[in-house]
Amino acid sequence: MVTLPAAPIVILARPQMGENIGAAARAMMNCGLADLRLVSPRDGWPNPLAVPMAAGGRKILENAVVFKSLAAATHDVSFMIAASARRRDLPIKNADPRVAATLLLAHARDMSAINTGAETSPRTALLFGPEASGLNNDEVVLADILVTAPLNPAYPSLNLAQAVFLMAWEWRMATHLGDTTEPVLPAPQPNMPDGQPASIQERDFFFQRLETALDDSDFFTAPDMVASVKRNIRALFSRAMPSVQEIRTLHGIIQALKRQRK
Amino acid sequence: MVTLPAAPIVILARPQMGENIGAAARAMMNCGLADLRLVSPRDGWPNPLAVPMAAGGRKILENAVVFKSLAAATHDVSFMIAASARRRDLPIKNADPRVAATLLLAHARDMSAINTGAETSPRTALLFGPEASGLNNDEVVLADILVTAPLNPAYPSLNLAQAVFLMAWEWRMATHLGDTTEPVLPAPQPNMPDGQPASIQERDFFFQRLETALDDSDFFTAPDMVASVKRNIRALFSRAMPSVQEIRTLHGIIQALKRQRK
Repeated sequence: MVTLPAAPIVILARPQMGENIGAAARAMMNCGLADLRLVSPRDGWPNPLAVPMAAGGRKILENAVVFKSLAAATHDVSFMIAASARRRDLPIKNADPRVAATLLLAHARDMSAINTGAETSPRTALLFGPEASGLNNDEVVLADILVTAPLNPAYPSLNLAQAVFLMAWEWRMATHLGDTTEPVLPAPQPNMPDGQPASIQERDFFFQRLETALDDSDFFTAPDMVASVKRNIRALFSRAMPSVQEIRTLHGIIQALKRQRK
Repeated sequence: MVTLPAAPIVILARPQMGENIGAAARAMMNCGLADLRLVSPRDGWPNPLAVPMAAGGRKILENAVVFKSLAAATHDVSFMIAASARRRDLPIKNADPRVAATLLLAHARDMSAINTGAETSPRTALLFGPEASGLNNDEVVLADILVTAPLNPAYPSLNLAQAVFLMAWEWRMATHLGDTTEPVLPAPQPNMPDGQPASIQERDFFFQRLETALDDSDFFTAPDMVASVKRNIRALFSRAMPSVQEIRTLHGIIQALKRQRK
């Protein structure tokens, strides 16, 4: 039995607008993150403007904890990723969000392995700065990794909730991909509510019926093209991989269209 | 010299709040998408509430084009991915956002390969429904792929701008990963011998003609099943991704079968 490692804490440093804090909580909820920490929110806390934007993530707001300093907010955090729209001239490792999420996951797994039985395991965290200015360099250097997303250089600045969502999504996908018991979809699967796909023979039977109907209706005008047009029609229907039920429907369509018009 | 394939068009079907349209435009700009189409926006267009939320994506709003129907909005689109918070009981392929983005990229590459020199290449599109209800099933079956994200089952409902951002981000990462000397994706498959694929609008026109012909022939016997049978037929043909020439052939088949038998 594999236990999923604890999801990262989201720390918002000096967030400005309540609406953005609420939207960040919704994004966290969407991706299964639960723990929100606020360092010196500009407009105080709680902030009624946050509530409507939180939608289904209201509980996360209610449980949010306020700290006076980033140091205090990270007292139990052993690995932190700081998000920024731009690289910094600082001696800190850079990663894109996808790589950062796998590093976060690897660290969280290490922690759960090391601390089984411990009262409180050290946690991982995602750190985001205020809307207008982003994190300052003193905040960035507290982190282990600086994450910058390869966005449009003409406008890389994400809305705060989008930035939180991006990292939370990449975390979620990293854990899903790593979870062997429940993998994400390996490939798009045709949703076949009508049951099993038709056999090649059933397809062939349908094709023959269609071709006979077309022969009877003088569909084919150029004799030397008949074989190739028939092949092309077969290929078109085969590409759809029709189910048994769908072949039945197609038979019904031929029958209906052949009826004399009223 | 490798040319990047054209980025997908974003189509918002019946969007409700201007603020969300603006935020969607910002997310598009962040990820390098440019073309926004609106189908029957609830509060008309232009909408001044959209502007502040668009931030650096204001130009995308200015260039947004409004359409009266989804069919009209897809007149030049040959491959479309519809986003939904939930799976549907429809015979349409499902994929998660990451897989969907690679399929989108593969298709866009096919298009640029096939249509060099053509006046206007067919485009790919991402389709999103209104905030409150999401896409209806008739809108979903016009698409080639239904994308659902493996989010928190307790609250998978994304804000509209987050949904747009998620797909735009996955598109951007897919193109980045593919933008190397060694392509990640297998070579495009030559499954389109007849040239360019039909647009979604051309498909829709064919479906309407087929449905009218079936109505005239008393094909539908159970009135309460008509809508769902029509959707299933549409999904079957859409799965095959017919080319322009193949749609022409299908029109010819209807016409031929409808002729009075000799």
